[in-house]
Amino acid sequence: MTAIIGWKEISRVLPRLDLMREIEAGFVAYSRGEAIVPPVGELLFPCGEVHIKYGYIRGDSTFTIKVATGFYDNPAHGLDAPNGLFLLFDSRTGAPVAVLLDEGHLTDIRTAIAGAIAAKYLAPPKIEAIGVIGTGVQAREQVKYLKLVTPCRCVRAFGRSETAVEAFCRVLRDDGYDAASVATPDEVAARANLIVTATPASEPLLMSASVRPGTHITAVGADTPHKNEIDPELFARADIIAADSIAQCMSRGDIHHALARGTTSQDRLVELGAIITGASPGRQNANQITIADLTGVAVQDINIAQAVFWAIRSERDVS
Amino acid sequence: MTAIIGWKEISRVLPRLDLMREIEAGFVAYSRGEAIVPPVGELLFPCGEVHIKYGYIRGDSTFTIKVATGFYDNPAHGLDAPNGLFLLFDSRTGAPVAVLLDEGHLTDIRTAIAGAIAAKYLAPPKIEAIGVIGTGVQAREQVKYLKLVTPCRCVRAFGRSETAVEAFCRVLRDDGYDAASVATPDEVAARANLIVTATPASEPLLMSASVRPGTHITAVGADTPHKNEIDPELFARADIIAADSIAQCMSRGDIHHALARGTTSQDRLVELGAIITGASPGRQNANQITIADLTGVAVQDINIAQAVFWAIRSERDVS
Repeated sequence: MTAIIGWKEISRVLPRLDLMREIEAGFVAYSRGEAIVPPVGELLFPCGEVHIKYGYIRGDSTFTIKVATGFYDNPAHGLDAPNGLFLLFDSRTGAPVAVLLDEGHLTDIRTAIAGAIAAKYLAPPKIEAIGVIGTGVQAREQVKYLKLVTPCRCVRAFGRSETAVEAFCRVLRDDGYDAASVATPDEVAARANLIVTATPASEPLLMSASVRPGTHITAVGADTPHKNEIDPELFARADIIAADSIAQCMSRGDIHHALARGTTSQDRLVELGAIITGASPGRQNANQITIADLTGVAVQDINIAQAVFWAIRSERDVS
Repeated sequence: MTAIIGWKEISRVLPRLDLMREIEAGFVAYSRGEAIVPPVGELLFPCGEVHIKYGYIRGDSTFTIKVATGFYDNPAHGLDAPNGLFLLFDSRTGAPVAVLLDEGHLTDIRTAIAGAIAAKYLAPPKIEAIGVIGTGVQAREQVKYLKLVTPCRCVRAFGRSETAVEAFCRVLRDDGYDAASVATPDEVAARANLIVTATPASEPLLMSASVRPGTHITAVGADTPHKNEIDPELFARADIIAADSIAQCMSRGDIHHALARGTTSQDRLVELGAIITGASPGRQNANQITIADLTGVAVQDINIAQAVFWAIRSERDVS
């Protein structure tokens, strides 16, 4: 019997899971070549997009297919833009084991946790303020999961819509943050030394000239070939350029634009999984500029889905 | 709420549906360029494979993602090799509308119906015998759905395993067929002028020298780049070479091997959708040799899933 699991049941087990450890293990397996992760499937609509990420880690008893949808007109109709589901199949028989109807939340969470992992290894030791460019669900989740790695509760945020950025800051203030909006992305860079960009921009928002030495940037918004948040020139100044997947970042995300402009080269890229194991160094001093480009890799989906599924299954077995 | 629909409920509505019309409409939409069908996603295991076929037809209210698994050791453990499921999503919001837990049966059926469609337009007017190479689920389904287009109830079958081919013929005899096994693929070609190949062979089984003028061949087994059932030389003799998808047959299935060997060329290929609309001619006389290479196109999955889903939904609405 295929287990059908809704978001309510998923959200109940999440607090019990060490998702940071699960996602780190996924990146490590990926960088060690232990993951089978084919290219992302993609389906485009006039006002939406669908990504299919899938694969398995050698030796796992299940493989995972994740469908993440994002339809930009949804908020105008009272719906969240992201949606989707996860499928787990038995690796020995191909039988569907579980459908996780996560409504897109697990994708948001695993992406935010990747941001926290990037900050853990690359952010400067003392974070003055967390800078956020973007005001959507992912911007909010990034700030939330950074709690796992920094005590900083000061946020400076930029968004195109004044209403949206004010609402974003209000939510954070309600959660005890010193959160304020700033007028430009440059001002974010002037105030914050840990910056997260989480927008669907197709033109750079964070310009190289505005970024101070000692800043770490996590770029999560650009996950397709055309999206671009970070000025390609910044890559020429960066001391560490980390990709969740070098292979994927060759054709998607901000690194891909920098490669096209010649402001960095493939041999300068390191993978997050290699930084986690220590095979590549993380931040070495307080003055380095570091960038983590997160385009989203199926190993994150594989490991979060497995962790959620096994937790729920053991719970169901008990009851 | 996402509808979760099991095979039992699916199988109950199937007899009410005109699936041949649905699948024909899918091929026509595809050949007219009205379908968005990205390349097939694929995941390989030591003893199994997973295909992800997905897309939509312009204007449809849903899009479809189909997962078909095939694990070859399953029968040794009392399980069918094929399994899988279909997902329907809302094209305007990305929300999951339905999960069809079809256990792989809808893929078998839509493939068998494509074979019946190929025979409808390409088989000779008088069918002496249906020749079958292969004894698996798909071989059986092909014979079953050929009932839609021919009164012929004579089957000559070849299989590598004597036990399997005898069991295959017994099932058909129980269903009123004159079914008998023959010793070689050559003998299939000597007895039958409508031949279906449905094996996972990676070396040609049906040799050109054995095929008589006036024969139609439907090749359904080869759906990956390495699989190959039909002698590439036969393509040089064929009067009509139909592909379910020319684009897909450039890199998968038997046509792809013939192209590589130079025994046919892209300009000689026609699409099933064009034959259905009359844009390309079907069989013109009793002596032609015709081949239909069916690698499986997502439009078949899209249309069978929609037909099943809407039938079940209207039934659920009534009750």
